Amino acid sequence: MNRYKLTISYDGTAYFGFQRQPNVNTIQEVLEGVLSRKFGEEINLIASGRTDTGVHAFGQVAHFDTEKVVDCDRLPFELDKLLPADIAVTEIEKVDLDFHARFGAKSKTYLYRVYLSKHNAPLYRNYTSVCYYMLDVEQMEKACQYFVGEHDFRSFMSADESIKNSVREIYELRMERSADGKELDFFVSGNGFLRNMVRVIVGTIVDVGRGRFSLDDLPKIFAAKDRTQAGKTLEGKGLYLVKVEY
Amino acid sequence: MNRYKLTISYDGTAYFGFQRQPNVNTIQEVLEGVLSRKFGEEINLIASGRTDTGVHAFGQVAHFDTEKVVDCDRLPFELDKLLPADIAVTEIEKVDLDFHARFGAKSKTYLYRVYLSKHNAPLYRNYTSVCYYMLDVEQMEKACQYFVGEHDFRSFMSADESIKNSVREIYELRMERSADGKELDFFVSGNGFLRNMVRVIVGTIVDVGRGRFSLDDLPKIFAAKDRTQAGKTLEGKGLYLVKVEY
Repeated sequence: MNRYKLTISYDGTAYFGFQRQPNVNTIQEVLEGVLSRKFGEEINLIASGRTDTGVHAFGQVAHFDTEKVVDCDRLPFELDKLLPADIAVTEIEKVDLDFHARFGAKSKTYLYRVYLSKHNAPLYRNYTSVCYYMLDVEQMEKACQYFVGEHDFRSFMSADESIKNSVREIYELRMERSADGKELDFFVSGNGFLRNMVRVIVGTIVDVGRGRFSLDDLPKIFAAKDRTQAGKTLEGKGLYLVKVEY
Repeated sequence: MNRYKLTISYDGTAYFGFQRQPNVNTIQEVLEGVLSRKFGEEINLIASGRTDTGVHAFGQVAHFDTEKVVDCDRLPFELDKLLPADIAVTEIEKVDLDFHARFGAKSKTYLYRVYLSKHNAPLYRNYTSVCYYMLDVEQMEKACQYFVGEHDFRSFMSADESIKNSVREIYELRMERSADGKELDFFVSGNGFLRNMVRVIVGTIVDVGRGRFSLDDLPKIFAAKDRTQAGKTLEGKGLYLVKVEY
């Protein structure tokens, strides 16, 4: 048996997220279909995690097993011709059988893009959360620091999720402002992320920027362990899985 | 009679360019249709110039005349609801009747985005020219300077074009490299541009980066006044009309 690690980039606009589900178009289903036809056997992908509807990836990671021997340099070029233009496999690597794309992930990095505009923003509409408010960027920069470190992120997790341990560690949360000041990019890396966690955290930071929350509210929101206390969940379309480290 | 100046942003992916043509979907036709229904009269737009199939805009400019009085602050918000999500009017301004969006333009600025990747690049596919070659970026930076100033750009103009005076002045041609080195952004401003001129210039600079041309070839290409001597015309999808100044 051989195990291969794939690095995958996709534009999530047209998909109901990564993970295979009945009756909807998913990235996993398209990839498994192409790989299964290519290898003449059923290929099952194990990804580092799901991404939701509309979420994009520069560096999603998945693994699969096959008895066949894969030419790792050549296969990505063949897949460029077999996959739809909104999905690409950018790297393939043979890994040990104890490599596991999900359980072996030590760190994930996400990007969340916010675009500031009074009006519709055609070139950003599928790739950012368009924000129509005036924002206090300095307060937002300070807010970022409240999320770094090990915390119970229960208030920043989808209310639908039933998970026991909601303690996670954020290694870094960095906000970058574009030269023209119109785009705010949030780079977040951590040891693991709860459902919707990045989208709720950035939504809460945007609410600090709007003055809906003060910095002093943030420790109270953490302490409440209650999803309704934090800011809104921003849209999936502004979120990118940038890389997964093992 | 009142004259109004519109600033327009669009994602050109779904359109056969800006300019109205029979039997194809164009940005001008969609805009004129929405404005005509809004005002209850036929509205004709005069734009700063056409943009080709797939070309995008952050700041296309057009004007139109009407007997009606427009609320310039309010109309862009109304148009946000009437226009498709890939077209937006970001600003409306009342101007004198001697303002002319095409003949009054003193300077235009374009951006051309090149993305360097060995494989398909899902998130860039409609918004850059994806370049699979290794490029010598230092040589390309030097090449940019050959285009600045007043020149006869006949070699860098669509061969289909029959125009007498092909002398134009480029005020600035600046190449910016993204932090990760994967994207090259060319900002070009000048007093006017021939058909395909930005796309052929950047295509020629990319050919310098690939080693197909040396810097010494560039003056010869200018002197030949022959389109076949220059580099290839890069795709429309990497081109953005950034702003027009009057």
